Amino acid sequence: MADDPLVRKHSGDYHWQGVDVLKYKQDGSAPFRDVTRQVLFDSADPPAQLRYFEVAPGGYTTLERHEHVHSVMVIRGRGQCLVGDKAFELATNDLVSVPPMTWHQFRAGEKEPLGFLCLVSSARDRPQLPRDEEVARITQPLRK
Amino acid sequence: MADDPLVRKHSGDYHWQGVDVLKYKQDGSAPFRDVTRQVLFDSADPPAQLRYFEVAPGGYTTLERHEHVHSVMVIRGRGQCLVGDKAFELATNDLVSVPPMTWHQFRAGEKEPLGFLCLVSSARDRPQLPRDEEVARITQPLRK
Repeated sequence: MADDPLVRKHSGDYHWQGVDVLKYKQDGSAPFRDVTRQVLFDSADPPAQLRYFEVAPGGYTTLERHEHVHSVMVIRGRGQCLVGDKAFELATNDLVSVPPMTWHQFRAGEKEPLGFLCLVSSARDRPQLPRDEEVARITQPLRK
Repeated sequence: MADDPLVRKHSGDYHWQGVDVLKYKQDGSAPFRDVTRQVLFDSADPPAQLRYFEVAPGGYTTLERHEHVHSVMVIRGRGQCLVGDKAFELATNDLVSVPPMTWHQFRAGEKEPLGFLCLVSSARDRPQLPRDEEVARITQPLRK
């Protein structure tokens, strides 16, 4: 963090001074819709990143799993998440823990964005994607 | 995080299901006023904690420094912080980086609480306190 200014002001609408709005993933690398990514802290001690993801209304993150864990806090709007074989309604300030190798996906509602912080280890494995024929079974809890 | 539920709902007013409201520090261990502490995530990977501190109106955290860094995000209210030889006005969603061995203090305003997330390494050194005769000099930027 040595190169960061001491204070970076929120400049409105979940953008920050000196923080770039990034593509969520490389185009075509995995299915998702309307998600942006911002790295708020890229820390050496602990070796961790705190990112802000925002899913636009009707959007969703990639359905994936990996060994590294996600510690998530919703800070804007509402939506749903799938974690393993359960779906949950999410509102601002809710906390989500995604354990290792657990299928997960975050979805905004139709009218509101879903914005959340996600804490991860700096050294982490690449996500695994489901096979096409697995998707309907894995996402079944979201349709109940 | 294996023992945590997957989702812990915000139960209102910056309290969460299954998250205890703790004393900020041991009584008498250091000067502070009207601060609570809640550990939102206690993660093994990365070895880090994400805590929520809330400073009541008129309250302040301990003036201290240490080798470990703080990555801070304001999520409630307004206030001020001292970081090194500078004081900053803080509002919701602002980001603060406290470098190693840098004097720092967070203060709420007189009318609003100041609530902030603070990311730290799980293994961290104990804070150092200023000598009595140093306090006025260190906190001078807060009075400008």
